[in-house]
Amino acid sequence: MRNVVVTDHPRADAADAGTLGEHGVATVHEALGRVGYLGPTFRPAWPGARIGGTAVTVLCWPGDNLMIHVAVEQCRPGDVLVVATNSPSSDGLFGELFATALAHRGVRGVVLGCGVRDVAELREMGFPAWSTAVSAQGSVKATAGAVNVPVVLGGQVVHPGDVVVADDDGVLVVPRDDVPRALTAAQARIDKEAASRAAFQAGELGLDRYGLRDRLGEFGISYVSHDEYVRGTE
Amino acid sequence: MRNVVVTDHPRADAADAGTLGEHGVATVHEALGRVGYLGPTFRPAWPGARIGGTAVTVLCWPGDNLMIHVAVEQCRPGDVLVVATNSPSSDGLFGELFATALAHRGVRGVVLGCGVRDVAELREMGFPAWSTAVSAQGSVKATAGAVNVPVVLGGQVVHPGDVVVADDDGVLVVPRDDVPRALTAAQARIDKEAASRAAFQAGELGLDRYGLRDRLGEFGISYVSHDEYVRGTE
Amino acid sequence: MRNVVVTDHPRADAADAGTLGEHGVATVHEALGRVGYLGPTFRPAWPGARIGGTAVTVLCWPGDNLMIHVAVEQCRPGDVLVVATNSPSSDGLFGELFATALAHRGVRGVVLGCGVRDVAELREMGFPAWSTAVSAQGSVKATAGAVNVPVVLGGQVVHPGDVVVADDDGVLVVPRDDVPRALTAAQARIDKEAASRAAFQAGELGLDRYGLRDRLGEFGISYVSHDEYVRGTE
Amino acid sequence: MRNVVVTDHPRADAADAGTLGEHGVATVHEALGRVGYLGPTFRPAWPGARIGGTAVTVLCWPGDNLMIHVAVEQCRPGDVLVVATNSPSSDGLFGELFATALAHRGVRGVVLGCGVRDVAELREMGFPAWSTAVSAQGSVKATAGAVNVPVVLGGQVVHPGDVVVADDDGVLVVPRDDVPRALTAAQARIDKEAASRAAFQAGELGLDRYGLRDRLGEFGISYVSHDEYVRGTE
Amino acid sequence: MRNVVVTDHPRADAADAGTLGEHGVATVHEALGRVGYLGPTFRPAWPGARIGGTAVTVLCWPGDNLMIHVAVEQCRPGDVLVVATNSPSSDGLFGELFATALAHRGVRGVVLGCGVRDVAELREMGFPAWSTAVSAQGSVKATAGAVNVPVVLGGQVVHPGDVVVADDDGVLVVPRDDVPRALTAAQARIDKEAASRAAFQAGELGLDRYGLRDRLGEFGISYVSHDEYVRGTE
Amino acid sequence: MRNVVVTDHPRADAADAGTLGEHGVATVHEALGRVGYLGPTFRPAWPGARIGGTAVTVLCWPGDNLMIHVAVEQCRPGDVLVVATNSPSSDGLFGELFATALAHRGVRGVVLGCGVRDVAELREMGFPAWSTAVSAQGSVKATAGAVNVPVVLGGQVVHPGDVVVADDDGVLVVPRDDVPRALTAAQARIDKEAASRAAFQAGELGLDRYGLRDRLGEFGISYVSHDEYVRGTE
Repeated sequence: MRNVVVTDHPRADAADAGTLGEHGVATVHEALGRVGYLGPTFRPAWPGARIGGTAVTVLCWPGDNLMIHVAVEQCRPGDVLVVATNSPSSDGLFGELFATALAHRGVRGVVLGCGVRDVAELREMGFPAWSTAVSAQGSVKATAGAVNVPVVLGGQVVHPGDVVVADDDGVLVVPRDDVPRALTAAQARIDKEAASRAAFQAGELGLDRYGLRDRLGEFGISYVSHDEYVRGTE
Repeated sequence: MRNVVVTDHPRADAADAGTLGEHGVATVHEALGRVGYLGPTFRPAWPGARIGGTAVTVLCWPGDNLMIHVAVEQCRPGDVLVVATNSPSSDGLFGELFATALAHRGVRGVVLGCGVRDVAELREMGFPAWSTAVSAQGSVKATAGAVNVPVVLGGQVVHPGDVVVADDDGVLVVPRDDVPRALTAAQARIDKEAASRAAFQAGELGLDRYGLRDRLGEFGISYVSHDEYVRGTE
Repeated sequence: MRNVVVTDHPRADAADAGTLGEHGVATVHEALGRVGYLGPTFRPAWPGARIGGTAVTVLCWPGDNLMIHVAVEQCRPGDVLVVATNSPSSDGLFGELFATALAHRGVRGVVLGCGVRDVAELREMGFPAWSTAVSAQGSVKATAGAVNVPVVLGGQVVHPGDVVVADDDGVLVVPRDDVPRALTAAQARIDKEAASRAAFQAGELGLDRYGLRDRLGEFGISYVSHDEYVRGTE
Repeated sequence: MRNVVVTDHPRADAADAGTLGEHGVATVHEALGRVGYLGPTFRPAWPGARIGGTAVTVLCWPGDNLMIHVAVEQCRPGDVLVVATNSPSSDGLFGELFATALAHRGVRGVVLGCGVRDVAELREMGFPAWSTAVSAQGSVKATAGAVNVPVVLGGQVVHPGDVVVADDDGVLVVPRDDVPRALTAAQARIDKEAASRAAFQAGELGLDRYGLRDRLGEFGISYVSHDEYVRGTE
Repeated sequence: MRNVVVTDHPRADAADAGTLGEHGVATVHEALGRVGYLGPTFRPAWPGARIGGTAVTVLCWPGDNLMIHVAVEQCRPGDVLVVATNSPSSDGLFGELFATALAHRGVRGVVLGCGVRDVAELREMGFPAWSTAVSAQGSVKATAGAVNVPVVLGGQVVHPGDVVVADDDGVLVVPRDDVPRALTAAQARIDKEAASRAAFQAGELGLDRYGLRDRLGEFGISYVSHDEYVRGTE
Repeated sequence: MRNVVVTDHPRADAADAGTLGEHGVATVHEALGRVGYLGPTFRPAWPGARIGGTAVTVLCWPGDNLMIHVAVEQCRPGDVLVVATNSPSSDGLFGELFATALAHRGVRGVVLGCGVRDVAELREMGFPAWSTAVSAQGSVKATAGAVNVPVVLGGQVVHPGDVVVADDDGVLVVPRDDVPRALTAAQARIDKEAASRAAFQAGELGLDRYGLRDRLGEFGISYVSHDEYVRGTE
């Protein structure tokens, strides 16, 4: 039951996904309780892209992009293609021709737990891509994998239909059932951050704003002048 | 016979090298049968450069750029300087002053299996550089190495006079004798990719275009609806 | 005596720090005798920034940014915030809200031996940041650390009040007492490099300019034509 | 619902887990269709241990082992403690005192997606441990996490009660529901490998035994003598 | 003042250093408040060694062991040789011949922030070595460095005369002035750990022994049965 | 001409290879002028093995061990199997069954630029293996590669028939034509090292033995007492 293409999976709402994309990775990550982040190894192929979409997942053999060809057909407008390999690989399984096919289908971007190539062309096309490597290393089409089964990338499980948010900070997955909560919590956080931003611009300190000053003693933190400190360590 | 400077080596044609550079790393790599790529650890110092030139090779002791000084004199218009260290090192053996000297000689860029520095200045000069690290760490001039002997970088052997192609996808070496074949095969691939691009823009699928759909059964790949899949894994 | 906030430490002159920042990492590093560089793992969050300022140091528990909140209050115009964690961590301890608070206080940038987040926002704000990772991973405020004690980053000791220089080549620390010497030596190097640059633009070789040609024999380096070399290795 | 300790989870049979442990990681991994392996970054603290047990899972904040203290109480004979941190960390969250407490409870070993310490003592005790680092770096008890929720380690999801198999080749997870199939398939593989081993000891070739020789043409593989090959590449 | 050999530095007491060595890295690290550990990249060349000694420090150019030759003469019985390179290098600067010379002088071991070689011979000699790499790559003797100046290894400053403790958990530095405190605190910790060990062997839980059970609510940790948890996440 | 099996390649003498194996990696590496070492990423699967043999080379697709099956047939007594993948991979392409087949043919060991598995079984069999990873991850047999073409591993070119030397320090390649020189130079080095060892055991210093003491001034190295040094840096 592994070499399977799962069709017609339920998807989170594409508009909701887009809204979470606008909110951005760091905000939604915090709003959800600091979960779902794929970690610092996923980097954008070019800076400035910011997307949210619904995952179509692919599991490939290393050095083999057969299943990406299969997956393209399963993609719909609002999707994000999410590619995992079943063992560590940096090979460039995805490039400009795939991006062309996906752009035609309204796909918003790609996330790869391996390499991407044609970086200059992707930047010119404006097709967003995140990956763990940039590599021109080409691939074969020789070994089966799966489409739209749960995959693990960056320590997170991505189910088909989950929301994927990505920007210059990396990639976040929001489980489909958590989208309503994410929308609400992210908006609350945005409001709170706007207030904090205004306060910090006016010179307030986080120490005071977050009620930390009174707790410093409890944390065991004390203040000492530089002169005293130097005397104490001599 | 190691601490040697080899002079007057044969070079691939500089115009051919330039043509391969325009074709780009991924295209030429595929055209040649997926060989010659230096892998994902070689990254451009600044984005957007795309070059092809003929290799002048340098072998340095780690932390020592003596042989780059020696190599400059061997460079001619159309060359690319290719620097290896004989053990792993990230030190910045190359910077803006070397780039100034090489630009004067018509050299098209530099590839370093170690660090580069003066990244901002190189970007402003428009002098292309690829390296495995960015590092300001300076070097001495104390230990001999070699110029224009074969060197190994990123798992590939680079002979002096070989063509080096580099862009945002990394670096590729094309052996001098393979240049004619590379030119022909790359042009064929470009034509084929143009046709595929047009087809994908019109909505054709790679599954059909590459004749993969009929072979899915042979690969052991089957389709199942999401409902069936969920029932099967419960 | 570890969970301490040291106040009123002496600082290098902010204008001197700014001057060293304009000179740049590679130049000051060389001028001081190739010391003080934090190595290739510290990278800018966005390209093109170039700063010099005086260090306010922070030591955090991994995944915990409590002490950055404490440190903000200790920052003055001309400072650079320097954050270390007491064990390896890539978590994004610093983002746009902190940058807002620091910008209000005239802080020139931040250097983090861990992750940074809100990269797009920092780029838009023009707030410079260098770090060993980009990560949206959020943090708690649960464990005490220290402010303005010496910290080690990238193999270098940073004392509060030291000058921190950072640009696209990475980050350099100049001990407070070495600032006068750094200013003099950097200016001398800049003058020397200007002369070398002009010479290289006019076609002089480093081999001649640096008196290396006469020493090649002493280094054991010999010249051989390609034909001779090939015969010798056959 | 994240800072939760889940009690009384169902477990795979401890004897079955032990049997899979005897079969070893590589054999069970192959038998299940090459799934479930945590990858090459998980290494034994000392060589020669070989275990199978049922997972008690722990999710810790980096640098904080509070939840391991909580988890010990949930452990029963036949269990294996499985510890993840919610962002990358190498800190040594586990050492000899924990091992003493777990040994008392009949726990068979520990798997850590972070550091282990007291390696010499663990080896002397014969308490098996696998981890992604060896580190003496100590931890605090300041931030909550979870016990017996699903965790991701090495690209695999580990549910509490799953079977964990570990030996010198690393660590494998077998989902609880797959244990019967794993037992059957592993035994079949062992029998098949025994026959192959005997055949190879007698000089048979894999080319023949696995029916590969007749397919070499289909793979595009041809044979050429060294002399011909050298002439072809000259 | 950098290419200097500093003679006749004060040393911690060699017997005290030996006592701390017997206590081991993890214990002394905890006793001192979790400071001084060189991190998980320093590994023993062979398992089972456990030493404490006083540091003789060496700063080498990468790929160059000239200064180790200079440093040997400065070593006395009870010392540990501590070698840093001034930029990242894995070259094997130290091997069996150096070990022979150091053993003659009563040196207890070596710690290298680069490579070690002759691993089999060191194991046979019983000469302890810790390093960040094993590498046979040989070195030149061409560039000056320093002996007995402070060096940074693994994020820690090592001053000549400090105590270095090393075992299978890695390497720890104890500043010379902290040795009396380290001896007292380590003994206290050993006593405390012995009591904890006995308690754990008798079945007591850390939750109770460390007073954590009553604080779980304060941490926000709650207990839930597996059945309830599954219902809550469905 | 890439998917080719080259037969009947010339080999270095197996007895000579064995002699170089007894001399060991570090000695032969130095004797040849510090060339041919595959670097610190190649580690033995178990400690204590020491071999020399003649290379049979294999080039595999990542995650695919088809060509190892093909290569076994080409192996003769005295050979060492040398496996490269054409892009970075850690998968365990080689295990106990292959070792059984190779042992039957008199093969002395295996070197893999990827993963090895069945580490415990290889140790029990006494079959030596060096690799860049330990991984149980299994492989397919789907894509062609080559046997007995030159491969690049660890920055070195290995030609079929070259001598491969491996021990606890890693792996070295000696080109077939260099074997006579290697034998002579290694013996000379062994004699020289024996004399140095005896001298060091008797207390002589490398400073004197290698004539370095008189050159310290030329290197710019000066001696200063600790008291003077401290005054100079205050």
